Amino acid sequence: MHIRYIKEEMGRIWDDNNRFRTWTEVEVAVLIAKQSCGLCLVGVKIPEDLAESIVVDPAEVYKIEFAGLGHELMAYLQITQEQLPEHLKSHWHREITSFDIQDTAMALQLVESVELFQGATERLMGVVKTKALKYKNTPMIGRSHGVHGEPIDFGVKLANWYDELKRHREDLERLKKVVAVGKISGAMGMFNLDPRVEKKVCELLGLKPIISTQIISRDIVARYLSTIAIIGGTIQKIAVTVRRLQQTEIMEAQEYFDPKKRKGSSAMPHKRNPIGSENLYGMARLLRAYDHVGKDNQETWDERTLENSGVERIILPDASNLLYYMLTRLAGIIDKWIIYPDKMLKNIDLTRGLVFSQDVQVLLAEKSKLPRETAYEIVKDIAQDCFDRQADFLQMLLEDEKITKWVTEDELRVCFDLEPKLKHVNHIFKQVFGKEE
Amino acid sequence: MHIRYIKEEMGRIWDDNNRFRTWTEVEVAVLIAKQSCGLCLVGVKIPEDLAESIVVDPAEVYKIEFAGLGHELMAYLQITQEQLPEHLKSHWHREITSFDIQDTAMALQLVESVELFQGATERLMGVVKTKALKYKNTPMIGRSHGVHGEPIDFGVKLANWYDELKRHREDLERLKKVVAVGKISGAMGMFNLDPRVEKKVCELLGLKPIISTQIISRDIVARYLSTIAIIGGTIQKIAVTVRRLQQTEIMEAQEYFDPKKRKGSSAMPHKRNPIGSENLYGMARLLRAYDHVGKDNQETWDERTLENSGVERIILPDASNLLYYMLTRLAGIIDKWIIYPDKMLKNIDLTRGLVFSQDVQVLLAEKSKLPRETAYEIVKDIAQDCFDRQADFLQMLLEDEKITKWVTEDELRVCFDLEPKLKHVNHIFKQVFGKEE
Amino acid sequence: MHIRYIKEEMGRIWDDNNRFRTWTEVEVAVLIAKQSCGLCLVGVKIPEDLAESIVVDPAEVYKIEFAGLGHELMAYLQITQEQLPEHLKSHWHREITSFDIQDTAMALQLVESVELFQGATERLMGVVKTKALKYKNTPMIGRSHGVHGEPIDFGVKLANWYDELKRHREDLERLKKVVAVGKISGAMGMFNLDPRVEKKVCELLGLKPIISTQIISRDIVARYLSTIAIIGGTIQKIAVTVRRLQQTEIMEAQEYFDPKKRKGSSAMPHKRNPIGSENLYGMARLLRAYDHVGKDNQETWDERTLENSGVERIILPDASNLLYYMLTRLAGIIDKWIIYPDKMLKNIDLTRGLVFSQDVQVLLAEKSKLPRETAYEIVKDIAQDCFDRQADFLQMLLEDEKITKWVTEDELRVCFDLEPKLKHVNHIFKQVFGKEE
Amino acid sequence: MHIRYIKEEMGRIWDDNNRFRTWTEVEVAVLIAKQSCGLCLVGVKIPEDLAESIVVDPAEVYKIEFAGLGHELMAYLQITQEQLPEHLKSHWHREITSFDIQDTAMALQLVESVELFQGATERLMGVVKTKALKYKNTPMIGRSHGVHGEPIDFGVKLANWYDELKRHREDLERLKKVVAVGKISGAMGMFNLDPRVEKKVCELLGLKPIISTQIISRDIVARYLSTIAIIGGTIQKIAVTVRRLQQTEIMEAQEYFDPKKRKGSSAMPHKRNPIGSENLYGMARLLRAYDHVGKDNQETWDERTLENSGVERIILPDASNLLYYMLTRLAGIIDKWIIYPDKMLKNIDLTRGLVFSQDVQVLLAEKSKLPRETAYEIVKDIAQDCFDRQADFLQMLLEDEKITKWVTEDELRVCFDLEPKLKHVNHIFKQVFGKEE
Repeated sequence: MHIRYIKEEMGRIWDDNNRFRTWTEVEVAVLIAKQSCGLCLVGVKIPEDLAESIVVDPAEVYKIEFAGLGHELMAYLQITQEQLPEHLKSHWHREITSFDIQDTAMALQLVESVELFQGATERLMGVVKTKALKYKNTPMIGRSHGVHGEPIDFGVKLANWYDELKRHREDLERLKKVVAVGKISGAMGMFNLDPRVEKKVCELLGLKPIISTQIISRDIVARYLSTIAIIGGTIQKIAVTVRRLQQTEIMEAQEYFDPKKRKGSSAMPHKRNPIGSENLYGMARLLRAYDHVGKDNQETWDERTLENSGVERIILPDASNLLYYMLTRLAGIIDKWIIYPDKMLKNIDLTRGLVFSQDVQVLLAEKSKLPRETAYEIVKDIAQDCFDRQADFLQMLLEDEKITKWVTEDELRVCFDLEPKLKHVNHIFKQVFGKEE
Repeated sequence: MHIRYIKEEMGRIWDDNNRFRTWTEVEVAVLIAKQSCGLCLVGVKIPEDLAESIVVDPAEVYKIEFAGLGHELMAYLQITQEQLPEHLKSHWHREITSFDIQDTAMALQLVESVELFQGATERLMGVVKTKALKYKNTPMIGRSHGVHGEPIDFGVKLANWYDELKRHREDLERLKKVVAVGKISGAMGMFNLDPRVEKKVCELLGLKPIISTQIISRDIVARYLSTIAIIGGTIQKIAVTVRRLQQTEIMEAQEYFDPKKRKGSSAMPHKRNPIGSENLYGMARLLRAYDHVGKDNQETWDERTLENSGVERIILPDASNLLYYMLTRLAGIIDKWIIYPDKMLKNIDLTRGLVFSQDVQVLLAEKSKLPRETAYEIVKDIAQDCFDRQADFLQMLLEDEKITKWVTEDELRVCFDLEPKLKHVNHIFKQVFGKEE
Repeated sequence: MHIRYIKEEMGRIWDDNNRFRTWTEVEVAVLIAKQSCGLCLVGVKIPEDLAESIVVDPAEVYKIEFAGLGHELMAYLQITQEQLPEHLKSHWHREITSFDIQDTAMALQLVESVELFQGATERLMGVVKTKALKYKNTPMIGRSHGVHGEPIDFGVKLANWYDELKRHREDLERLKKVVAVGKISGAMGMFNLDPRVEKKVCELLGLKPIISTQIISRDIVARYLSTIAIIGGTIQKIAVTVRRLQQTEIMEAQEYFDPKKRKGSSAMPHKRNPIGSENLYGMARLLRAYDHVGKDNQETWDERTLENSGVERIILPDASNLLYYMLTRLAGIIDKWIIYPDKMLKNIDLTRGLVFSQDVQVLLAEKSKLPRETAYEIVKDIAQDCFDRQADFLQMLLEDEKITKWVTEDELRVCFDLEPKLKHVNHIFKQVFGKEE
Repeated sequence: MHIRYIKEEMGRIWDDNNRFRTWTEVEVAVLIAKQSCGLCLVGVKIPEDLAESIVVDPAEVYKIEFAGLGHELMAYLQITQEQLPEHLKSHWHREITSFDIQDTAMALQLVESVELFQGATERLMGVVKTKALKYKNTPMIGRSHGVHGEPIDFGVKLANWYDELKRHREDLERLKKVVAVGKISGAMGMFNLDPRVEKKVCELLGLKPIISTQIISRDIVARYLSTIAIIGGTIQKIAVTVRRLQQTEIMEAQEYFDPKKRKGSSAMPHKRNPIGSENLYGMARLLRAYDHVGKDNQETWDERTLENSGVERIILPDASNLLYYMLTRLAGIIDKWIIYPDKMLKNIDLTRGLVFSQDVQVLLAEKSKLPRETAYEIVKDIAQDCFDRQADFLQMLLEDEKITKWVTEDELRVCFDLEPKLKHVNHIFKQVFGKEE
């Protein structure tokens, strides 16, 4: 992952230093567990700071590995064993297999990542909620197909995002349990060591034992990457809105831009571009790609093959760093997002009343008792004509006797009123923020 | 989807006939809901068999749509309105938008599909469990990297699959709730109709109301396709095992093949190929592709754009049909899978004892008190040499004084015993089948 | 593939009828080739209409296959053999393997598809070129990041598409050669039959022999699907432009919409939506998914395994039909695309001159001899301020002595001239249409 | 990309240092070009080592960018301008836009990468060819569906790979031309600068001018990543063969493993695993994921949006580094691959003659004049029965009068001869290595 997209707190989890540190954490837990099950080291003292006292330099691991050993964990063992108290040396990594350590350690990293995602999601939800409450009852035009539909409330748009983020919050809560699984079941998953060791190790590390082969089944990892990708999809959807509302012709909102410090273009001095959202928009694609590979990796031959291993070395850090970066950056964008309610109002009027055509049609059907289709046809003809002539819709309606035969001017005017459009905003907010508000 | 991969009960859900039938179900529910909220048709009778009485021929819909109308649901409305009792005509699809109907109807289809997946998963779990119990304590060689590791139990291999399927069962249970959401919130999600209508419609249809724009947010659909793809990954993993165990050199198991009726190759009369598993293996790739697109589809502009629409028309039926086909076919394969326990035993012996090298190493470390690494090195040297010379491992050990200095022949012989390998099979079975067994 | 997205001429290539018809074509070619190499049937007459005389009903093939035979091609052989003249029966499909037939037949289908793509691409290029020439020298605002940049020429936008399509035309030309490969090398690719047979068969069918295992290597198919996906990406890019220019606030162009016949929304009678482009936009995602699977399928074990087979049965027809549909539909959209040059002009003025800021900066640097950065800073400050105040840019410049110190009003006014922006349009058109124009 | 997967020569191309160095190369070329077109700096000396004299520390760029400027290239300009001779300062990056520099520079990196791929592909082809020639006429069993088919030649297996690599060699040759494109067409592609500048710059840098918007169309980059992914698919296919032939039961070949230095498993001292090929196998999945995103990136709004930008910052280095690593590592694996021809021979006999069933069938059909289907049925019945009873196939044939009625023992024995199976090896080698051998 390029350094630009690594936030310190997530980067720390997935760098090689921490990877080896987490291995040590598991190796030590195995020692303690074996002791506590009475399998070895009975009556012997395991120093409390044992894990912290062991220092592994990744460069050294790779040096040994590539000098011919050809096995990363064996290189790690060589380095760590030297640092152990003499009486522990022969018990280090005994009767267990590499992936008892590596997969259990991976689970610890995954849990930590999910926790960071949870924090970042909460922060994002916080700024979305603040903005939603602030812009409750701020009319803007709703658009479908990029074309004006009917007026909506900007606060409701934000509330919709919040509601979607609530679903992700639930997913993350569940995901945390899904990935919090450990295994100390040996080379083939048949428990060279008594299963009580696995149970104890998991207890020490806050994990749940999982039945496994040599490795933890990769459906677990697939769920992790899939959740990341779906959250990424939501970020992309929000990002495209920020981009769209900042289009010059629309300009209802704008990513924060400090014209004193910032430059938008190396050629065009007038530019202010929504580059934050564009960046996030693109990154979501990458999360989907990692997710795809995560599911490719579910395949393994027999008790395990390692085709997933190198790939995970890349995509687990990359996907984790990237999503965390994205959640954080999006929260920043929304937090400082500049909103132009006046322009929103102005854009509603852009089509001179056309966006109220549905109300006119409903009114006409109501008053005339004509079938829905007929009322629709009458209003459609006027509306489409109005669109082509760029005329005032109300005026055209008042001049058309297919309308005036059934409906009075006063009745018509009510259709062009904004307020009724927002009459269920409270309901929506209550559904979304209900207990929380 | 090619007709070969459509099972009748799933195909029925996703064909065009049923799509329009489900639309009608929702339209009728809206009528009833509006009436029950006192919004229209007060005191008027809505025939109980109204939905059933309406018949829509997809070919007719397309004819009208492509003749110029250019709107599928409007074509559908034209056809259905004609079939309504006169007094209901002007109330049909009034004040609602296409996707109030289409997305709510889609939810009904998704729920039905998930229920079929659940049934098929249960059936697959059933055959896996039966086989697992049957082959509990059937030793076979465990393999990592395609290479002999240590003996395992064939029943445990199956138990691992069962455990993974339990996770999918949980996912499906949750997914069913996730997709069971309806919306009657109108063109922009602002509730042209009182929200009580949405609530009532959802109640009638067994759904939960969801805050929405013009459409239900596609994170919902993404979760559906993602769950499908992850289940597909598990199917692929099981399938590759069936394929691998049927390799001529291994031949520990074989897909059922009736030599009287069946032909394996148009050129080679002797062939029996695991073609069922090969087919399933490949199909899992396709599920991942659909899933990828499902997440692409999360993006939508503003209150909605329709780029997801045509794609879903293809991938929702295709992915649903395919997974159901795969689950069903895999259950059939496992059910009739022919197992050769004798060959399993024979293959364990193929390396003349080498697969017990870990036990020898642990024993040596134990008895000699040498550091783990040193014991490992000693055994590794002998084992690797033994491998190259294709010699008998026990014999070589007995002739090597680096071993015999510490360990007796009797002690050594214990390492080559199969039984201790299986000593925790009960634990594993209890974990997996626990309350169920 | 849903019937909506199948055009007759492409659908015909990939339906089951034609698949079996193509098999027959290859089987007959093998007969003729063997005869012409003197391997059999010497002096015997092979009826000229043999291939045409053989009729295969797909339903019958599947019936036999699923009744227990479990082999599609063997079922096909059973049906076809019955229809052969007696003296040919024992020579039918002799000494060859299923995939001699199936893969060679697939190549014929691929070639035919590519030819249809070529035709459709030419037609699309035709309408793009017509529009480009028509709108040469039609100023519109150029946009980057969705924000006004500087004026461009609408004809140039179209010329860019044409240039990109030229690259695809070249790809297709090359692709046609890549896929036009046949194999009659037998069950393992070792040539049970003399290689002259393969050579002759390929000659008869317009193909080139390719060294193979049991099957033609799937890098060939991967190239086919990859080319499709990249063309799809171009279609998507064009489609998003159609969608964007039709946004209510921009409205510089519009998909053809007949307000007499067509309806845009079931709720909002005023709507005209760019639904054609939205549909195409989404479909491009699906092409990428098929492409992804095409590359997954490159893997095969040993001389062949069949995990690609079922998948190709789905994705080759689906991807081929879809791309052809997309090319054709896009040509229709562009052909009837309604352009509003007046609105384009009007939108250029939307920011009251800001879009000429680069010219001002270049002028200032030129005249003042200030470093580029300093000139940029001066103009940026005014431009950004102008943006916030929604003022007239020229006016603000004329009032700012950091400008007027170096530059006269007349010089400034030249910067706001549209004509110089278009001075290289001819160069671009010559590059793009050069020899063709 | 994790440091393990970066080879120095490719890593160098894509690191930030070189990225900025390449930008400088293009900026300087623009200066020279403008001068040579007489647009500026007439008669002024541009130092020959100007590009080399400018040093950019990426950390410094990011520091300035993130301090508020928010524009990487503008930060770069700030740093480089300070290092310019006074008389060049005001001409630096004048009248051009960021992506004139960045995209043209990217093209230079792409070209360099392709050249490295070409070298690595040649080296891989070299070792494959050497092995192919060495093992020409080395019989082994051919397998389809993982099951014994008929004998093949190991040299032919290698020749097939070589033939596939030849296709990639051609792709790379073409790709190099595709990516070697430059643009100096300004902010909107309308040529603020005279097109002669673009022409000259491209000439100086060995590129071809391409018509563009603000950026070079991403179909170019999509082709780059797609070619990478398809080559990856071939690597995966080769890798899976290495893995498969090293399965304990098959053991016809083995990745080089130095038992003195290397350790295969932290638990099982006897292990030798094909971990190189497993690693490569998995990595191919990742290349497909990058490719997928490359095609997602073809979309851009209007003259350009930047969602591709951050993504490319990640995937272009990652995909380039990874493919180069993979090609190089695979060449190493094949070069040192240990082949066991004796084991190959032995495995052919594993089914006691069954693998010659096709020859028997052809012979029977020939001699008996029975229809192909009848001959097939007779041989199939015996072969399948033989398989179940694990009997000797020839013996069973000789005991069955449905055979002996038509065929003599001597005739039958010929079917079991290996030599005729290899009779077309020369033809295949000539096709593959033809002019080259």
